[in-house]
Amino acid sequence: MSEMPAATPIEQRELVLTRFFNVPRAKVYRAWSEPEQLKKWFAPKPWTISRAELDLRPGGASVIVMRSPEGQEFPNPGVFLEVVKNEKIVMTDAFVNGWQPSEKAFMVATITFEDHNGGTKYTARAQHWSAADREAHEKMGFHEGWGQCADQLGEVAATL
Amino acid sequence: MSEMPAATPIEQRELVLTRFFNVPRAKVYRAWSEPEQLKKWFAPKPWTISRAELDLRPGGASVIVMRSPEGQEFPNPGVFLEVVKNEKIVMTDAFVNGWQPSEKAFMVATITFEDHNGGTKYTARAQHWSAADREAHEKMGFHEGWGQCADQLGEVAATL
Repeated sequence: MSEMPAATPIEQRELVLTRFFNVPRAKVYRAWSEPEQLKKWFAPKPWTISRAELDLRPGGASVIVMRSPEGQEFPNPGVFLEVVKNEKIVMTDAFVNGWQPSEKAFMVATITFEDHNGGTKYTARAQHWSAADREAHEKMGFHEGWGQCADQLGEVAATL
Repeated sequence: MSEMPAATPIEQRELVLTRFFNVPRAKVYRAWSEPEQLKKWFAPKPWTISRAELDLRPGGASVIVMRSPEGQEFPNPGVFLEVVKNEKIVMTDAFVNGWQPSEKAFMVATITFEDHNGGTKYTARAQHWSAADREAHEKMGFHEGWGQCADQLGEVAATL
């Protein structure tokens, strides 16, 4: 029942990446949502994805395991908050096993797929609980990492 | 892509309160989910609820404003994660405006309504992102506050 501190505007807690693909959004959505396709682009090469399972419904789990070139594995567990086919996917690392709080609520990732000149405007938005986490994410290489993956996504979508 | 620290078991991050009511669970659920009923019990008296709006669906907002005996108001914004009529309500303060991260991911509240000897077993579970938040919540008076409210809930349900 304590008073809340003054809010940090969400603009200071988010990172956004946009790409335009000459591919219809249904194909971009397929490349994102089908595990066999996602494995081809979700890690920046030469990293790979050794495992991808997506239970695409609110409360459903995503299990995506990245593998370094040296063979070390890094699990990225998450939960889907909202899924609108061909339009929008919202997921977060804030929960495990349904709605149990995870060790750390770091970010909400919102992916949108929009029609644009016969192709697709792809937007990946990472919103964080704190400005410090946003900054850490940027320094971890958000723009380079997510950017390279988005380019790889466009290439995979073009093959579908 | 960093490795996660060893997890704090959820048992060390949760607070649980249980009550048994001699009232069918459909009535307890009504007392919980209908704003006009919720206003009667959600704050420990002599505190009151000056406003209650519940959009009972995943991603829907809850706006509950507590008022102190001195007339000061304390908003408690939240978002519903899961709603199963007469069975379960899951909500959190981790989001605002749909799935935008709030200023602080403090807890997930899971409320369950179970049949028990012709009455209802009522369980309110608060799960936190950190053990420190669990401890702070306990010191804020979780057991006394939620306990008094649960007793008030049982009294309201019995009038329905």
